[in-house]
Amino acid sequence: MPARSQSHQITPERIFDLLQAYRNSAALKTAIDLDIFSHIGAGIVTAADLADELKIPVRGMRILCDFLTTDGLLIKTGDHYALNADAAVFLDRKSPAYMGGAARFLCSTPMMRAFDNLIDCVRRGGATEEVGLISQDHPVWVDFAHGMAALQALPAQNLSEFIDLPCDRPIKILDIAAGHGRFGIALAARYPNATVFALDWPAVLNVARKNADDAALGSRFETIAGSAFEVDLGDGYDAVLLVNFLHHFGIDEIATLFGRIRPALNAGGLLVIAGFMPNEDRISPPQAARFSLSVMASTPKGEAYTAGELKGMLEAAGFSYIADKPMSSGLQRLITAQSPGGGGGC
Amino acid sequence: MPARSQSHQITPERIFDLLQAYRNSAALKTAIDLDIFSHIGAGIVTAADLADELKIPVRGMRILCDFLTTDGLLIKTGDHYALNADAAVFLDRKSPAYMGGAARFLCSTPMMRAFDNLIDCVRRGGATEEVGLISQDHPVWVDFAHGMAALQALPAQNLSEFIDLPCDRPIKILDIAAGHGRFGIALAARYPNATVFALDWPAVLNVARKNADDAALGSRFETIAGSAFEVDLGDGYDAVLLVNFLHHFGIDEIATLFGRIRPALNAGGLLVIAGFMPNEDRISPPQAARFSLSVMASTPKGEAYTAGELKGMLEAAGFSYIADKPMSSGLQRLITAQSPGGGGGC
Repeated sequence: MPARSQSHQITPERIFDLLQAYRNSAALKTAIDLDIFSHIGAGIVTAADLADELKIPVRGMRILCDFLTTDGLLIKTGDHYALNADAAVFLDRKSPAYMGGAARFLCSTPMMRAFDNLIDCVRRGGATEEVGLISQDHPVWVDFAHGMAALQALPAQNLSEFIDLPCDRPIKILDIAAGHGRFGIALAARYPNATVFALDWPAVLNVARKNADDAALGSRFETIAGSAFEVDLGDGYDAVLLVNFLHHFGIDEIATLFGRIRPALNAGGLLVIAGFMPNEDRISPPQAARFSLSVMASTPKGEAYTAGELKGMLEAAGFSYIADKPMSSGLQRLITAQSPGGGGGC
Repeated sequence: MPARSQSHQITPERIFDLLQAYRNSAALKTAIDLDIFSHIGAGIVTAADLADELKIPVRGMRILCDFLTTDGLLIKTGDHYALNADAAVFLDRKSPAYMGGAARFLCSTPMMRAFDNLIDCVRRGGATEEVGLISQDHPVWVDFAHGMAALQALPAQNLSEFIDLPCDRPIKILDIAAGHGRFGIALAARYPNATVFALDWPAVLNVARKNADDAALGSRFETIAGSAFEVDLGDGYDAVLLVNFLHHFGIDEIATLFGRIRPALNAGGLLVIAGFMPNEDRISPPQAARFSLSVMASTPKGEAYTAGELKGMLEAAGFSYIADKPMSSGLQRLITAQSPGGGGGC
C-alpha cells in the first residue's frame, strides 16, 4: 500500500484500512481464482451476467466487484464494471503479462501463515528454522517458479542485456536458485556459445527444464539438483547468477556462499546479483523496503540488503565490485562483480 | 486501501501491494501490541533504543519500523522515527482517541480467518451459519465493545445531538446491541429524564454497565440480556437505537426485527439507525462500501445497506421515514424514522 501524503485531515480511516488490509489480499486472490478479470475483459461486465456465467449468487459477485472497485482495479459505471489499466495488463488471462499465478505464491497458506505470528518474528528477529521455507524442497517454490515466470520475462531480458560475456569461445553460466529458469535462459538466448547450469530443488528444476525446452536450448541447458550450500557447484563458469536469492540469508551464510562461488568462477568471471535492494535509507523504493518484513517473517536471518551492504560483502569475499544499477522495471536492482583476474565481454 | 488515480504508468506494483496487503495488517497489529507508537511518542525514537526498551533484537525493530514508515504511519529522518499525525492521535496510548483496542477486534483470529475462505463465501453469497459470529455470545463481541469504545465517543455525542426527544416527562430509550453502551449513554447525558435499556449478550453488558457507571447513570441504566430477535423487548420506548447492527442481517430478518420494535415504541416514537451506509452507487464512500465484504465474510445474509434500501424496509414495516444524514465523523450515516402517531422533541 502506498504511503499517503502527510497533508491530510486527521482521521482514523487510514488506520482502519491498514488494520483490515488482509481483506484486500483475500478479495484480489478470490477474484483471480474466479477469473473475474478475464471474464470482464471478455465483455461479461455486470454482476448479474458474471454471476450467471460463474453460477454463483449475484449478491456475492456484486459485493466482491464493488470492493475491487474501491481498490481501483475495476471501474464501475452504472452497473457495468470495466478493468483499470493495471488489471487489463496483469490480471486478464489473455494478456501475455498475466500475473495471476503470482497470487498462488504470494497468497499461499505458508506465506500468509508466516505473518500470523509476526510479533514472535519481531521478538526473535526472524522466523524459526521450522517456519523458514528456504532450506527445503517446499512445494511453495514450485508455485513460485510457475507464478513468477511470465512476470520475469522482461527483467530477465533486461538482465541479459547488461551482462557482457565472451563470444569467441564456449562459456558456462551457473544460475543459482534458478526457479523458472528465465534469467539463465535469457542469457543463453543472447549468447549462443553459452551453456546454462540451473541449480534448484528437483521439483522446481522440472519447471525450468520445461521453459528451457520451450526456448529450444537443447543440450545447452543442464541442471544441478540440491542446495547451493551443499552440492558440488562445478567450476569453469564465466558467470554466476544470484537472482532473488541472497535476501533469504544472514551475512555469515552469504559469506559462506560467496566462498563456494569464487573457486567455481574462472579468473575474471562475473558474479551477477539481482533482486529487491532498498536504498540506504531502507524506506525507498517502498516495494523493496517492505520486502524485508516478508523475509523476516519467513527466514531466520534474511532481509533485503542494500547495494552498499552487498558491496561490502562482495569485497570481503575478494570480488571486485563493478557496478549497481536499477533494472528497467524499476522494482529491482542489479549488481555486477568480478572474480580476481582478467576477463571481459565481446 | 484508497483507490489510486487511474492516470499512472502501468506497473504490477499496485497489484503486488494488494496481494500482500495482509502484511500491512500484521505489521500494524504487531506494532500496536508492542506499543511502539506510544514509545516513540514518549521520545524513544531510534530502532536501537526501542529494541533496548522492549528487549528485542534491533534487527526486528528496525525492519518493522521501516515497514511502518512505508505505510506512512512513521516518518523516518536519519535513524530517528517520528509519529505521523494519525498515529499520534490514534495509536499513542496517551491520546484520548487511542484506538489500539480496535486492532484486537479487527485483527482477531475469527475476523481474519473468515477471509481465508472468502471464495466460498462469494460462491454461497455469505458465510455459513457456523462461521457467522452474530447469533451467539462470542467473545469477539467483548473485544469489540472494549476496542471501539474510545473511538465511538465522538459519534455517540454526534448522534445524541441529532435526536430530539421529549424533555417534560420521563422517557425510555432502548439501545439494541448496545456493545460498549456509548450511544445510549450519550443520549442519557443529554436527557436527564431518560432511562436507557441496553440490550446485548451478558458478557458484553458488563462492558456497557462499566461505562454507564463511569458516566454515573445509576438507576437510569438498565440491561436486557439476550438476542434482540428472542427476548422480550419491553414497551413504552420513546426511542430505539439500532447502531452498527442491521448490516449483520438479511432483509427478511430486518423485517422481523422491525416488526418486534414497532409495538415496543410509543406512538410517534423514534427509530434511530446508524452505521456504515454506502451511497447508492455502492462504491462510495470507500470505507462504507468495503464494509459489505467484511459482512459477507462473517454473516450468512448481511451487507452494508444503502440509506435508500433501509428507507424501503422502514416504510414496508409501517415507519415514517424522517431523514438520513452523514454523521460528523463522515464515516457513518444516521437515519431517523417514526412509529405511527404523533410525538415530537423538546
